[in-house]
Amino acid sequence: MSRFWSPLVHSLTPYVAGEQPTMSGLIKLNTNENPYGTSPRALVAIAEAANDTLRLYPDPTALRLREAIAARYGRDPDDVFVGNGSDEVLAHTFHALLNHDEPLLFPDITYSFYPTYCRLYGIHFRTIPLDENMQVRIEDYRQSCGAIILANPNAPTGIARPLSEIETLIRQHPDQVIVIDEAYVDFGGESAIPLVTEYPNLVVVQTFSKSRGLAGLRVGFAVGQRPLIEALERVKDSFNSYPLDRLALAGAIASFEDEDWFQQHRDLIVASRERLTVALQGLGFDVLESSANFLFARHPEKSGADLAAGLRDKAILVRHFPMARIENYLRITIGTDAECDQLVAAFRQILT
Amino acid sequence: MSRFWSPLVHSLTPYVAGEQPTMSGLIKLNTNENPYGTSPRALVAIAEAANDTLRLYPDPTALRLREAIAARYGRDPDDVFVGNGSDEVLAHTFHALLNHDEPLLFPDITYSFYPTYCRLYGIHFRTIPLDENMQVRIEDYRQSCGAIILANPNAPTGIARPLSEIETLIRQHPDQVIVIDEAYVDFGGESAIPLVTEYPNLVVVQTFSKSRGLAGLRVGFAVGQRPLIEALERVKDSFNSYPLDRLALAGAIASFEDEDWFQQHRDLIVASRERLTVALQGLGFDVLESSANFLFARHPEKSGADLAAGLRDKAILVRHFPMARIENYLRITIGTDAECDQLVAAFRQILT
Repeated sequence: MSRFWSPLVHSLTPYVAGEQPTMSGLIKLNTNENPYGTSPRALVAIAEAANDTLRLYPDPTALRLREAIAARYGRDPDDVFVGNGSDEVLAHTFHALLNHDEPLLFPDITYSFYPTYCRLYGIHFRTIPLDENMQVRIEDYRQSCGAIILANPNAPTGIARPLSEIETLIRQHPDQVIVIDEAYVDFGGESAIPLVTEYPNLVVVQTFSKSRGLAGLRVGFAVGQRPLIEALERVKDSFNSYPLDRLALAGAIASFEDEDWFQQHRDLIVASRERLTVALQGLGFDVLESSANFLFARHPEKSGADLAAGLRDKAILVRHFPMARIENYLRITIGTDAECDQLVAAFRQILT
Repeated sequence: MSRFWSPLVHSLTPYVAGEQPTMSGLIKLNTNENPYGTSPRALVAIAEAANDTLRLYPDPTALRLREAIAARYGRDPDDVFVGNGSDEVLAHTFHALLNHDEPLLFPDITYSFYPTYCRLYGIHFRTIPLDENMQVRIEDYRQSCGAIILANPNAPTGIARPLSEIETLIRQHPDQVIVIDEAYVDFGGESAIPLVTEYPNLVVVQTFSKSRGLAGLRVGFAVGQRPLIEALERVKDSFNSYPLDRLALAGAIASFEDEDWFQQHRDLIVASRERLTVALQGLGFDVLESSANFLFARHPEKSGADLAAGLRDKAILVRHFPMARIENYLRITIGTDAECDQLVAAFRQILT
């Protein structure tokens, strides 16, 4: 606390990211990173971009990256917004599109950065409880509101809603912005990007951090009709003209264009997820049906805190959220099969 | 305009950055980039960091970079804040420290992003006119206010105030935050960082974009006592956990540690600045005394717009601000001596 602070600062409750320990030898299944990394072509593109042109500012409009993303989804580059990780894209989205007289709606259990953004920008919000199966029930959102944001698949549950339900939600709120946060969609969800053509109130946010294996590069994007993207641009250009550096632009473009590499390694993760689900169920875990690159699981005989501590003693990190309703769950990132096997072996020891 | 926008968006007036044209063959003296780029060691460090670890999030606290900066200035790493370019650092500074009941003060002619940040965060501000010599007159700031931000050297004039005057300002406002934006300080100004020890109300902001030749990497930093830095961290952690990617961290650390390269090329630019000043004066220009890597100059016989257009016809870009009081000035980045010679030759043609 300090008399020098803007009054707002006293009321902030910053988001707490998962640990990024520097010690080696850890099995790190706590922040949903991709065990296979990114396309080798992206690494080559970055190394090539490490040259004298770094003395020059990047393209403030990131046109080539927006063109690459737009081409994939059959849209115009002007319908694409990019930022320094999807966290920055989400921050600008909250600021530019979600601050209205009526409250923003999102689930009680979801990406815990959402209420943090609301406090940062003074946005009223109301949380809607997941149902007893930890699912988003779309009909619960049929109420007066200023806007809605849903993660689909949801985090940290990993559960996806079908696109038909997302479309129902968008139709039921023609005068409100609906943001679908698809950080994990490539691992089994259905993207809402094709709906952008029809619905002027839809914004879809994605990231390069998970399925593209580039958490360390910080690139995310949003797709929506031009007026919504223009709002994001106005906020971005009032904040930082050049949020993406030259290396991030080069790496993201090359990564996005290597579709084969992307699909092949995404499929590996999906296969490992199914394999790990079966193994954990064999140990007695209750595992939610995941469409993401992580599992959300609890064991009837041991608390989430005890399980997380037991794994940590064996140099395995998973994420545990000490929050109501989910304090007995662990969020476990899908690693390589070898890492998953070590996790299962560790659980077996802890549980016997 | 859109009914979907947060009401704030309608009132934004985004900052307009200098052009970043992609055509080659231009002499680009419009955005204060460094003609010599960065230390070769930084390029090596970046190329080495383009590896499998990009799958992992960066260190959200950027500890090693903060340590490198702190070591140079004899401070604790906890007194250093880093961000995605000094524009992001400034944005968080406005949000976290400059929003008070009384207005923020800054000069009428200064970095034109300041009023943009104020509109983004709803900060009251009052501009104080530069004096008739385009100088900041410190005694004009002796008035009731919420906080003060000064660029020193000022932009786009390039004129620096001595550190003794900055200290007077800080002493006269013990209950207000004073931000000194030192984007150009390495080219001839006196940094206020040594004053941080004594004054709990001082924040100093610097960038890697100019003197470190890394405009394309997007790294900036702030130095201040712990409570002020904590405010910046709280806002940053409510916005984006990982604003600096792994490549930016690697390159910035290596660049900052190569002091010899930095000093040698900084000195080259300072020498070229003095040489270009004499040449422009020889053509009849009125050149303000610059402590930066650019000159701010006008010619008694030709408008700023005409001069800028004439240079553009010869494939030379400089910055012209069509604003009251400075519409006849050009802001000219110091390039290599060869580039400066071509500029002088072009002016000679335009003026005869």
